[in-house]
Amino acid sequence: MEITVYLAGEIHSNWRNELKEKAKSLQLPLHFTGPMENHDRSDMIGEEILGKQPDAIFRDEAASSINNLRTQLLMQKSDLVIALFGEKYKQWNTAMDASAAAALGKPLILIRPKELHHPLKELSSKANVTVETVNQALKVLSYIFETE
Amino acid sequence: MEITVYLAGEIHSNWRNELKEKAKSLQLPLHFTGPMENHDRSDMIGEEILGKQPDAIFRDEAASSINNLRTQLLMQKSDLVIALFGEKYKQWNTAMDASAAAALGKPLILIRPKELHHPLKELSSKANVTVETVNQALKVLSYIFETE
Amino acid sequence: MEITVYLAGEIHSNWRNELKEKAKSLQLPLHFTGPMENHDRSDMIGEEILGKQPDAIFRDEAASSINNLRTQLLMQKSDLVIALFGEKYKQWNTAMDASAAAALGKPLILIRPKELHHPLKELSSKANVTVETVNQALKVLSYIFETE
Amino acid sequence: MEITVYLAGEIHSNWRNELKEKAKSLQLPLHFTGPMENHDRSDMIGEEILGKQPDAIFRDEAASSINNLRTQLLMQKSDLVIALFGEKYKQWNTAMDASAAAALGKPLILIRPKELHHPLKELSSKANVTVETVNQALKVLSYIFETE
Amino acid sequence: MEITVYLAGEIHSNWRNELKEKAKSLQLPLHFTGPMENHDRSDMIGEEILGKQPDAIFRDEAASSINNLRTQLLMQKSDLVIALFGEKYKQWNTAMDASAAAALGKPLILIRPKELHHPLKELSSKANVTVETVNQALKVLSYIFETE
Amino acid sequence: MEITVYLAGEIHSNWRNELKEKAKSLQLPLHFTGPMENHDRSDMIGEEILGKQPDAIFRDEAASSINNLRTQLLMQKSDLVIALFGEKYKQWNTAMDASAAAALGKPLILIRPKELHHPLKELSSKANVTVETVNQALKVLSYIFETE
Amino acid sequence: MEITVYLAGEIHSNWRNELKEKAKSLQLPLHFTGPMENHDRSDMIGEEILGKQPDAIFRDEAASSINNLRTQLLMQKSDLVIALFGEKYKQWNTAMDASAAAALGKPLILIRPKELHHPLKELSSKANVTVETVNQALKVLSYIFETE
Amino acid sequence: MEITVYLAGEIHSNWRNELKEKAKSLQLPLHFTGPMENHDRSDMIGEEILGKQPDAIFRDEAASSINNLRTQLLMQKSDLVIALFGEKYKQWNTAMDASAAAALGKPLILIRPKELHHPLKELSSKANVTVETVNQALKVLSYIFETE
Repeated sequence: MEITVYLAGEIHSNWRNELKEKAKSLQLPLHFTGPMENHDRSDMIGEEILGKQPDAIFRDEAASSINNLRTQLLMQKSDLVIALFGEKYKQWNTAMDASAAAALGKPLILIRPKELHHPLKELSSKANVTVETVNQALKVLSYIFETE
Repeated sequence: MEITVYLAGEIHSNWRNELKEKAKSLQLPLHFTGPMENHDRSDMIGEEILGKQPDAIFRDEAASSINNLRTQLLMQKSDLVIALFGEKYKQWNTAMDASAAAALGKPLILIRPKELHHPLKELSSKANVTVETVNQALKVLSYIFETE
Repeated sequence: MEITVYLAGEIHSNWRNELKEKAKSLQLPLHFTGPMENHDRSDMIGEEILGKQPDAIFRDEAASSINNLRTQLLMQKSDLVIALFGEKYKQWNTAMDASAAAALGKPLILIRPKELHHPLKELSSKANVTVETVNQALKVLSYIFETE
Repeated sequence: MEITVYLAGEIHSNWRNELKEKAKSLQLPLHFTGPMENHDRSDMIGEEILGKQPDAIFRDEAASSINNLRTQLLMQKSDLVIALFGEKYKQWNTAMDASAAAALGKPLILIRPKELHHPLKELSSKANVTVETVNQALKVLSYIFETE
Repeated sequence: MEITVYLAGEIHSNWRNELKEKAKSLQLPLHFTGPMENHDRSDMIGEEILGKQPDAIFRDEAASSINNLRTQLLMQKSDLVIALFGEKYKQWNTAMDASAAAALGKPLILIRPKELHHPLKELSSKANVTVETVNQALKVLSYIFETE
Repeated sequence: MEITVYLAGEIHSNWRNELKEKAKSLQLPLHFTGPMENHDRSDMIGEEILGKQPDAIFRDEAASSINNLRTQLLMQKSDLVIALFGEKYKQWNTAMDASAAAALGKPLILIRPKELHHPLKELSSKANVTVETVNQALKVLSYIFETE
Repeated sequence: MEITVYLAGEIHSNWRNELKEKAKSLQLPLHFTGPMENHDRSDMIGEEILGKQPDAIFRDEAASSINNLRTQLLMQKSDLVIALFGEKYKQWNTAMDASAAAALGKPLILIRPKELHHPLKELSSKANVTVETVNQALKVLSYIFETE
Repeated sequence: MEITVYLAGEIHSNWRNELKEKAKSLQLPLHFTGPMENHDRSDMIGEEILGKQPDAIFRDEAASSINNLRTQLLMQKSDLVIALFGEKYKQWNTAMDASAAAALGKPLILIRPKELHHPLKELSSKANVTVETVNQALKVLSYIFETE
């Protein structure tokens, strides 16, 4: 049985690769999907496909509609969602993806530095499990396949 | 991960083949389904299977019930729906299919010539993304598989 | 028991008033809702609330998003949907509303002139009942309350 | 027909009262619900009911579980959700509530200052309508009840 | 708290009146709905509203589409469904209504003479409770309101 | 794309084999499931597994609970349901299965001899397509895979 | 806004009355429902309505089917569920009701003595809030209506 | 067609291996999943991954959140659930899993010793089938694949 995991959240650090490589070395039957990780391209995908937009707000609208289509499709095809919050940025789209996952009935793991516990308390309460490191999230994934 | 795409809309032009061939040349893991593309057969399928009907309205009823069964099944098995509107014809069944896709939670791409923006404005607002060409739709599909 | 009916479709003729008055004279416990019936205002509501938009397409986007919010809310609160197609206009939003009603499990009555049977055949097949006049639709509504 | 509106988001400013009073002066049949607006009490409700917790993280867990219960119940009973983002704070719970509303099929209005358009672009794309002021949101609500 | 009960099944006997009168004499807060009880009118409602049909099969189609619309609406507004099977007739529409009720998550009471236990065994297994008399069904309804 | 078809209905004739063989000769990618076709075993499966029951009614209860479990599982895994009614027997479980399929959103084909049109009219109206022969049903299945 | 609360669990103590009276003295707009509180009648309701059963197991089956119908209906009409576990008895039906509430998306409060924390840990994790006393549960209910 | 079965319940006896081996010897296309069967590890998994917790209750909370994530994911991927109750222990999580399975529409088989019929009567009534031995459950599974 293979499990498909959607990796929501921060695209500025290397956490997805770290998780994928460790999962691979453990030979876990996991398949990972996630958002466009090139930040500039994620912001410009609307104009890349639809052409020049009137201003920055409309450029954002065009890009976000395509990013949301991608997330909707990949999240629907996933069995579990991991959402990671970093120290910087607003990350409202990460909160949005995590909440959508919970509403869809997808098991949800939240990764956040301890320092962020207060502003993330409602989301943490909605997640199945909240951890602080990628390693801990991987241990939860691994546990699903273990029986003793 | 393979993605199944239902291609709703106009059956008078060659847009489905254009899309399929370009997807193939890009080696994207896409699987396409869609309606009966032979217009006459689509109209006559009711009488072809159920026999002569009393008049044109009942012939339409018989055909549409079979066409709807086909669409319902193939759309349920799809991950994403693309609906294309052309310049001609009423195309109310295309609007119906696009709306059903959105109601089912299927990601939806609308392709329409710019000139049709006004009568399609509510449907465009319900779609995830609205584009003007088959090429643009393909770029959205391709973007789902790219990570950088 | 009161039944709430959403009246989708054409806003250029007087059919909603005709239906409401006849229902009133029959003292049926029906409550009617529907779209903005002032066509210009429906088209301009985006700019009326959000301010001047860059061009006609963005004006349409702004208007349709507000019209869709209205339809979504009122349709969810309704027990039954009636969709009327007239002789003129594209009416793709009517087809969209009718299809969304069916997908939501709302009983659906279609009113259309006989001449439109062919382009509306798939939508007609999805509706519970297709009639040609407002009077016939009212008879269906009345029948729900009768027991003999 | 009365419409129940859940007011998600910022509890540091007076926007809920402003909206309620304007709605009242327009005699709109609106009923409003929302979160605990006393910020300290919202943070302390866990310890208030369950007693002293081991540390700040567990105090947050206890409080957020009760706040989430409240939000879940009131949002399920609402017909529409308005989510307001201000200039300050992380507001991840607002993003969470807005996303949950969309996933539940609740019509969603987003209020945010223009300056926040970039970090809120995905959420804005998921909302039905994004506005910049409480007045604009009220106009959308009012429009639902108007027919001409 | 009022409970709305849809009474599916046989329209040739007087069981609905019997049940309603007994419920009334017990002053239970029950509201009853059900199908058209005039058998001829139920069969002819298609032609009554839509006009003369080509033959008996199309007359049946026209009638059943209107009867199904009625049942769908009233069953969706009900809290519980009672389905009664008599000794005569095919009663496939009763089996259909009972099964639809179960699929919708509506509590379901089946009333059938003991003699019919074998052909109704699968439906009986799907119902919450199977009884043999109207009186027994009424006792189940009454039990819902009792606490000791 | 393979399509899984659940074959509900009569187990006294050979119609399932006829359908399977014809589908095979057409090389259609169809996978068929259905109920226990040994009538005696279907009736006795409760006692076979659970042991002697107090009387015929309890024997029926035991058998039907196991038959319903089987149908529920196989129908949930199917893409389409075909329900066949023959000339004999009550067949209320067939009506139940067909109605459950429709309620689950499964495309539904009804096969019935013309003579049964009147008692099956409501179920026929709920099905996508009603045909009279196994051959016609197969043509509908085949049509799903054809594009011209 | 009135909130309907289903009170699942132990029927051997007086906790429901305690909760109702305190809610009344606080003038909270709460409406309470729950199971049959007469334990003997709850056990005998099957035979009371359906007549003498073959043995104790069949008597249990008959009673539980009627008790489950009652719970299903009242829980579907509720906005929130409170489940109380006491020191004695197996209380598997309480665990069943609490789990069904969570699966239905109903906000869930668990009341249990501290001593039972270990065997109830998975259910506690599924509930929104776990408390130890009726008073604490009432405070959660009251908090829903407070805004400062 | 392969069927995936989630095995809920008691982890102190060897019943899962017994079932798997017998299924294997019958060459049934069954795939089994289930909870962590090492009882100590199941209790300690929270601290194993998240670190030392303040006391036994918080240790339980941490463990149960991870166990629930596992169960939620594996149950959603299953076609059928078997829940076994033994003579000892509270087993409220087994009742919770069985009830969640029923609420998700998963076919449910209950295995329990005859002696437990009274406290399990409501859960038994909610299950599709209740048996007393692992062998009987296997016969039900086997029956799904047999046709004569």
